[in-house]
Amino acid sequence: MDFQQLFPIWNQLTLSQQELISASVISRTLGKGAVLHNGSMDCAGLVMIQSGQLRAYILSEDGREITLYRLLDRDICLFSASCVMRSVQFEIMISAEKESEVFILPPHIFKKIMEESAPLANYTNELMATRFTEVMWLIEQIMWKSVDKRLAGFLLEESALEGSDILKLTHEMIANHLGTAREVITRMLRYFQTEGYVKLTRGTVEIVDRSQMEALAED
Amino acid sequence: MDFQQLFPIWNQLTLSQQELISASVISRTLGKGAVLHNGSMDCAGLVMIQSGQLRAYILSEDGREITLYRLLDRDICLFSASCVMRSVQFEIMISAEKESEVFILPPHIFKKIMEESAPLANYTNELMATRFTEVMWLIEQIMWKSVDKRLAGFLLEESALEGSDILKLTHEMIANHLGTAREVITRMLRYFQTEGYVKLTRGTVEIVDRSQMEALAED
Repeated sequence: MDFQQLFPIWNQLTLSQQELISASVISRTLGKGAVLHNGSMDCAGLVMIQSGQLRAYILSEDGREITLYRLLDRDICLFSASCVMRSVQFEIMISAEKESEVFILPPHIFKKIMEESAPLANYTNELMATRFTEVMWLIEQIMWKSVDKRLAGFLLEESALEGSDILKLTHEMIANHLGTAREVITRMLRYFQTEGYVKLTRGTVEIVDRSQMEALAED
Repeated sequence: MDFQQLFPIWNQLTLSQQELISASVISRTLGKGAVLHNGSMDCAGLVMIQSGQLRAYILSEDGREITLYRLLDRDICLFSASCVMRSVQFEIMISAEKESEVFILPPHIFKKIMEESAPLANYTNELMATRFTEVMWLIEQIMWKSVDKRLAGFLLEESALEGSDILKLTHEMIANHLGTAREVITRMLRYFQTEGYVKLTRGTVEIVDRSQMEALAED
């Protein structure tokens, strides 16, 4: 795939802007587990995902995590270029959940073009608004939804991402996605098993009653 | 105060953009309690606060609230123009906590100028990033901080906003700010009173040991 196909509003850029981007974009493979962005220390640039899966999350001082959102094929990762916007004053982590092929536009080039191009600045606005929407959805989940509904929703989402009913997930990993304690997840998964929603084996969760889980998640 | 002093990047706009804005901006007084923006139904425009205090919050289906952030003198309210950015797909409420004097730029004028002006689009980016930072701070509070620390922090913030140690706040109002149940707040305030942090009377909370509360909030 050509990066031009991934690059937002390519046709609304001037020829010299297109040439500058073409000369600056680099292609990279991120191994599974690679950390692309580690809080405000890092600023790789604008990352366009050709294939793979990235996860954006936050980390507490004592090492707890919560997933903010995922980025998939053809998504653009804005906060890996957070140094470009001085008002982005939060620490976000971004890592590869699967091996990923990406194109990276270095931050100083992104900044230079955004400052002069209304289309690119407006596109960046829409991109940030998309992430904002995902984070607002998360707040609503955390505030108004109980853990059982969030767990059911998460397992269904994982199943859709993996294309499988058998999910390779430890209770620790699930707790890190949802920002809860491992014990809470273990207790809830056992309850789900008793109710016949899932079957648990070491390191895997198998969805066995999808419709019941959908009803719970959407409740 | 002139709205030009409040309007972001005024000097980076063209003369015709400045003239269009000058001809379109309206001045308005929002009474205490007035709702400026009620989810995606509303789109008043870009609101510049001359004086007063606005509150942005979300509302659950069963009427619970949580405060996202406050806007004070000279702040700009972006999400009252949320219809301008199609990727803003969440329902936010904005109301006046105090009587407020505001200037409003209608959404279609804001949109028209932002589409052609890189400075305005970049400024809008920074504005959204500022709100994003506040919401990320809130998630961290909700996820990693216990209610006692959040309550102490909230009372200190209110005290700073009001310039007083005596706060006119019902337990219900505090619960709506913090997104918890009224009973939880009542229990915690009674504990604070036992510890000598606050003194409670009907409808007011008085801060009596500020340094202890600061220590708790920052812990």
